[in-house]
Amino acid sequence: MTDTSQLTAPTLTVEAANGVTYAYRRFGESSDGVPLVFLMHFRGNLDNWDPALVDAVAQKQEVILVDNAGVGGSTGTVPSTIKQMTIDLIAFIDVLGLRTFDVFGFSLGGFVAQEIALLRPWAVRNLVLAGTGPAGAPGMHGWREDIQRESRIDQSTAESLLYIFFAQTDTSRELGKAFLGRIFARTDDRDEPTTAATRDAQYDAILDWGIPDITKLERLTGISQPTLILQGDDDRMIPTKESHTMVGLIPNARLHIFPDAAHASIFQYPEEAAVLVNDFISEQSSAV
Amino acid sequence: MTDTSQLTAPTLTVEAANGVTYAYRRFGESSDGVPLVFLMHFRGNLDNWDPALVDAVAQKQEVILVDNAGVGGSTGTVPSTIKQMTIDLIAFIDVLGLRTFDVFGFSLGGFVAQEIALLRPWAVRNLVLAGTGPAGAPGMHGWREDIQRESRIDQSTAESLLYIFFAQTDTSRELGKAFLGRIFARTDDRDEPTTAATRDAQYDAILDWGIPDITKLERLTGISQPTLILQGDDDRMIPTKESHTMVGLIPNARLHIFPDAAHASIFQYPEEAAVLVNDFISEQSSAV
Repeated sequence: MTDTSQLTAPTLTVEAANGVTYAYRRFGESSDGVPLVFLMHFRGNLDNWDPALVDAVAQKQEVILVDNAGVGGSTGTVPSTIKQMTIDLIAFIDVLGLRTFDVFGFSLGGFVAQEIALLRPWAVRNLVLAGTGPAGAPGMHGWREDIQRESRIDQSTAESLLYIFFAQTDTSRELGKAFLGRIFARTDDRDEPTTAATRDAQYDAILDWGIPDITKLERLTGISQPTLILQGDDDRMIPTKESHTMVGLIPNARLHIFPDAAHASIFQYPEEAAVLVNDFISEQSSAV
Repeated sequence: MTDTSQLTAPTLTVEAANGVTYAYRRFGESSDGVPLVFLMHFRGNLDNWDPALVDAVAQKQEVILVDNAGVGGSTGTVPSTIKQMTIDLIAFIDVLGLRTFDVFGFSLGGFVAQEIALLRPWAVRNLVLAGTGPAGAPGMHGWREDIQRESRIDQSTAESLLYIFFAQTDTSRELGKAFLGRIFARTDDRDEPTTAATRDAQYDAILDWGIPDITKLERLTGISQPTLILQGDDDRMIPTKESHTMVGLIPNARLHIFPDAAHASIFQYPEEAAVLVNDFISEQSSAV
């Protein structure tokens, strides 16, 4: 148990061997000492993690939120490949001295999560993939026109986030507005906003990840970690079918589909998602 | 509407251009004249189609059940590849003069269904795939030891069918026993039993289909037909995850998972499956 949360945890910094100073937050406590590292979506910084999700997870796990190199309050530049983002993240992992950890990747963060699971199979224990998809799969090469328009505008607005993240139903949008209220609730020690250069380099990396190549699906068969996949039933940014492909090909995976939900199902149902994540990690740990 | 059913429809024969005389049954009526051709599982003949399923479907669609070359009452020999089974089936389709039809493939029949969808995209309108999986995918190269043992015994028994087809729960097995009662209800004009040679050649073809080759997943992206995928939540013969891979990669596909069910979910929930199939076909037809 902890008395810090996403709304009160201090924003920390640490300089890694690659010369990048990473901004991060760390709170909660795991009974077995293994933390859960959260990897963020396109254009997101530390404040974009829904307090209702990460605080509920932090009741059972130590949580580490991080800006990768060049993002928000971290120094350095955003690379234009997922591979280099993963190498940048590993520098952060190494300076913290994490030898075993769980990973939660959302959207773009889910691409990096897959890559680090493959690059550090000995260190990544469990994997959670939300609103994401596999390299090279059909439907992964960039976004449909409306999503691209709303997500690449110069300044993210509440309306654009609502449009991209939630289903076009009154029920989903109401839960979306509650989410927006939560991520803007913190007033003190907020993270630095992400820049246009971050946006462009990240979208380069997203397009590179999606270049059609059916043979890349074999990479999924190399993910040895128990994997929990979370997704909305109609994600218009990263199609829901990509989550089916992942659960079909990752050897030890399970899939939970949230109803009436789009890309940000985990922010629409934060308490439910936290229970799924904590139960999954607890079940895997007790199975060892 | 029709007064014939799987229990009373006569077993017909027709000789095709390849010299094979095919045994088949044909009953029910489609409002648009497009029939639904059913493709059978490993070792099955015409009598293995659950009357509760096909009769309920036949309330809305004309139904054609067929023994492929060498199976049951059909002459010829069973080939050891899915490709040749598909070519054999096409000879039957052609002698009936079917230029547009829907296909329902179960298990091995689902392999042939995928292949004919790819070979005759101009003739196959809608596709239903039950308890089946894609060529070359992980987990498709033959069956686990217990399933292989129960399914390759010299004479199929009620107990072996129960073991392979249904979940190991009291509820699933009770529904399985009801299914067994239904497929043995017909006493008059039953089909010829399948032989040991049929069993062996079919299993050769199943293993050939499953030889690991991740590049074959690209074939799924070429299935242009609207596709309904039906599966039990824990199929031990063709793993449930294969259905996720198919719905992830077939461009226009949907997936329905039945609870507490294994390989023969369509025979455990025949009325529910028939409603799903008829609604799917009706919806696609009205969308054209």
